[in-house]
Parts: sequence; structure tokens; C-alpha cells
Amino acid sequence: MNRKLLLVSNSTLHGGGYLQHCQEHIQHFFGQEVKRVLFVPYALHDRDAYTKTARDKFQSLGYELDSVHEAANPVEAVRKAEGIFIGGGNTFRLLKALYDNDLVTEIRKRVLQDGIPYMGSSAGTNVATISINTTNDMPIVYPPTLTAISLVPFNINPHYLDPDPNSRHMGETREQRIVQYHEELGTPCVLGLREGSMLLVEGNKASLLGTTNARLFQRGKQTTEFEPGSDLSFLLIDAP
Amino acid sequence: MNRKLLLVSNSTLHGGGYLQHCQEHIQHFFGQEVKRVLFVPYALHDRDAYTKTARDKFQSLGYELDSVHEAANPVEAVRKAEGIFIGGGNTFRLLKALYDNDLVTEIRKRVLQDGIPYMGSSAGTNVATISINTTNDMPIVYPPTLTAISLVPFNINPHYLDPDPNSRHMGETREQRIVQYHEELGTPCVLGLREGSMLLVEGNKASLLGTTNARLFQRGKQTTEFEPGSDLSFLLIDAP
Repeated sequence: MNRKLLLVSNSTLHGGGYLQHCQEHIQHFFGQEVKRVLFVPYALHDRDAYTKTARDKFQSLGYELDSVHEAANPVEAVRKAEGIFIGGGNTFRLLKALYDNDLVTEIRKRVLQDGIPYMGSSAGTNVATISINTTNDMPIVYPPTLTAISLVPFNINPHYLDPDPNSRHMGETREQRIVQYHEELGTPCVLGLREGSMLLVEGNKASLLGTTNARLFQRGKQTTEFEPGSDLSFLLIDAP
Repeated sequence: MNRKLLLVSNSTLHGGGYLQHCQEHIQHFFGQEVKRVLFVPYALHDRDAYTKTARDKFQSLGYELDSVHEAANPVEAVRKAEGIFIGGGNTFRLLKALYDNDLVTEIRKRVLQDGIPYMGSSAGTNVATISINTTNDMPIVYPPTLTAISLVPFNINPHYLDPDPNSRHMGETREQRIVQYHEELGTPCVLGLREGSMLLVEGNKASLLGTTNARLFQRGKQTTEFEPGSDLSFLLIDAP
């Protein structure tokens, strides 16, 4: 399998600019073969403004950026893309728009069969996984399913957040929410990507990049911590 | 309209026991006419343990508690109920189970037509509103719709949380998430109920109870703060 994915937890790290914390990884990922990246701005309401932000950043890194929302035919734009970047925002809105525009199957085909590189950040990382069941976002719209592009057979929780021991807030912690997911039958692994971390997938090899640890939740098993540089290829084996 | 609702933000307030912060309101709400309350434990996985917790609390307040999950026929149990309490947990799981058991229409009928009192806390408050579009919970299961029991024509965000000015976390604040909801067309008001607050609805009169302010979000309008004791009856007029 040709699969080539860069799945980033967060678009902006505290104190930095848009995609600044992962810009060297982006350049290494798209390399010199890719000249133009196809951007999917569906997760935010103002697609024009979002495209400008992404375009400015990608141009500064040496890539032209086309937005799928500017294309006369979005499916055709995906068919011609050299590489894809789906940005963050609201995951429900993003997934619904991907289905509304018939892009889910098409992106999956291009990435898994044709091997074009796929980068996601935040919501764009959620939709790259098996489903959006572990998004942090508010369900502001109702997508036709929670099943996502399924470029990997597990779930990711982006912006993973450790419990704050000083908090007086009684809402569930992130860990409690993921444990509730795993109370349901047949639910796959959930990789909690803290802000600052990202997953690089090349074929059947997955490794953790960035500056923070990731936390892995498996149904009925102990949670595990992984440091940057860890080999997470075992996650790509298709079994819950 | 006979409607009688007590919609509580949170089941437990920091430092207190289960439903302790609202126990006097509960007694005042169900009064002396109601002897038995029908409990809906669907939002948590362990329904037996959850029922025991709720039963112990309600018995201490002078009410017998039957759980709908112990009934041979849940619809029949709702038809016979003197009062209903839906507890917190995961809102998606709760709403899906309400639909799976054909209870949404039945509860609506009992509350709006027959006037039996309905109490909800957290997820149980979410499902009492027009939809669960403004839940904080993780979509661990996929309900057949986000439309809920619709006992009121607006949304509630329970456990409403103000932004933490010291946070370095870059995920959206609660306010940003609700603003994203209001970017969608035709979305109704969202009442942000901070922990410690609750909404009492009697017929066409609504008032804020508890110890914390509530924050009201209206599409295209300025957000507003309301203190405990405020009259919020205008929210019951059916218009976004």
C-alpha cells in the first residue's frame, strides 16, 4: 500500500503561528515532487478567508495551494490533485460537506490506490481515520454517518488533553469520554494526540513525530504512553 | 400548556454529593403529589449501578424510583409514570437509546399533553430541548437524528464553561463552538447553563434557579448574561 499520511493534532501551537510548529515536517512530507496542494476548507464557515490563511502559509513553504471550494467540480479537483490538505475546524461540518460533495470515496481512492500524500490537521486528522466518533467538536450539523475516509483502521483524538488536577469543573475529562467510547462493543483503538504531536504514516509504517507524547487507549486494555519517535505501525493492522 | 420541567446543568457540583446542590429544588418540583419517579439511566453504560445511585438519592428525598431499564415494556412504563427523571452521561448514547426504545414521542406526549413533571440533568437536560446539537459529549454512537424530545424550542449547553485566560490549550472554547453552531442557518437560541444553575419551566413561564449566571447566545445578536431569578419566558416563544 502506497499510503502517505501526515496527521497533525493541532493547526496552531500556543505562542506560534498557523502550522508553524509542523512546517518542517510539512516540507519533508510533500517534498519536491508535489508542486500544488489541494486544500479542503469545509471545516470553517468562511472558506475564502480560510483558504487565504492556508495559501499564504503553503506559499511560504514553496507550494501552490488550490482550494476545492473554488473548483467548478470538486470531485474532478480531487482526481487531479498531487496532494491533499484538510484543515481543522468543526469535524461534523467537515464530514457532512465531504459527503455532500461526494469526496469521501474519491479521496480514499486517491490516497490508498494512487498514493498521493494526505495531510490533515485537527478535524482534518479526525476525518482521515476510521470514523469521527472521537472528535471533541460540537455536533452543529448532522452528517449522514460518522464513518470517515478510513485511511487508517483506528481513531484519533486530536488536541488530547490531560485532566487538570486543579479543575472544579465536573464535566467528563477527555480520558473519561474515550473510556465511554470503549464501553461500546467493537470499538477500535484511540490514539490521543496531544497538541504538538503528529502521526506520520508511510505504507504500513507509522511513527510519532513532534514534541509531545501520545496516549493510546485500547478497549479492555491498559492505556499506554508513547514518546516522539515511537514506532506505532502495529496500529495499522486492521483489528479493534 | 401544562409543561413542568426542571432542567439542571450538572448532576454533581464540585465538593458536593450526587444531586446535592439541587435537592431542595427537586423536592419543590416533584412536590407531594408525585410518589414514584421513573428514571432513565440510558446515558451511562452500567444501568444497574446508575439506578442504585439515583434510587438512593431519590429515596432520601422521599420518592420511590423505578428505572425504565427494569421495566418489561419501557413505553408502558412511560405511559404510567407520575414523573420522569433522565440522568446525565453521554448524550449521544442516551438519545439513541431513547429512539431505540420508542420513548421520544411517548415522553413528549406525557410531558406536554398530560403535564407530568420532567427533570433532566446534564445529558437529560440536553435531550429535553429541541436537539442535541449543543452537547459537549463525544459522539460515541450514531443516533438516528439529533432532534430530541423538544419540550422547549431552544438549545441548552449544560456545564457551560467560561474560557480560561491562562490556558495554553488551542482547542475551541465553549463560546467559539456555540458561535460555530450559529453560523449555520436557522439555528435557535442556546442557553449556556453554568454548573450550579438550572432552568425551571412551568407552562409558558421559565426562570433561572441556582447559584450561577446563565449565558444566552442568539444567532446574529449579542450574547447576554442572566442572574439567578431571571425570567426567561421569552425563550419559550417558538422562533429562532
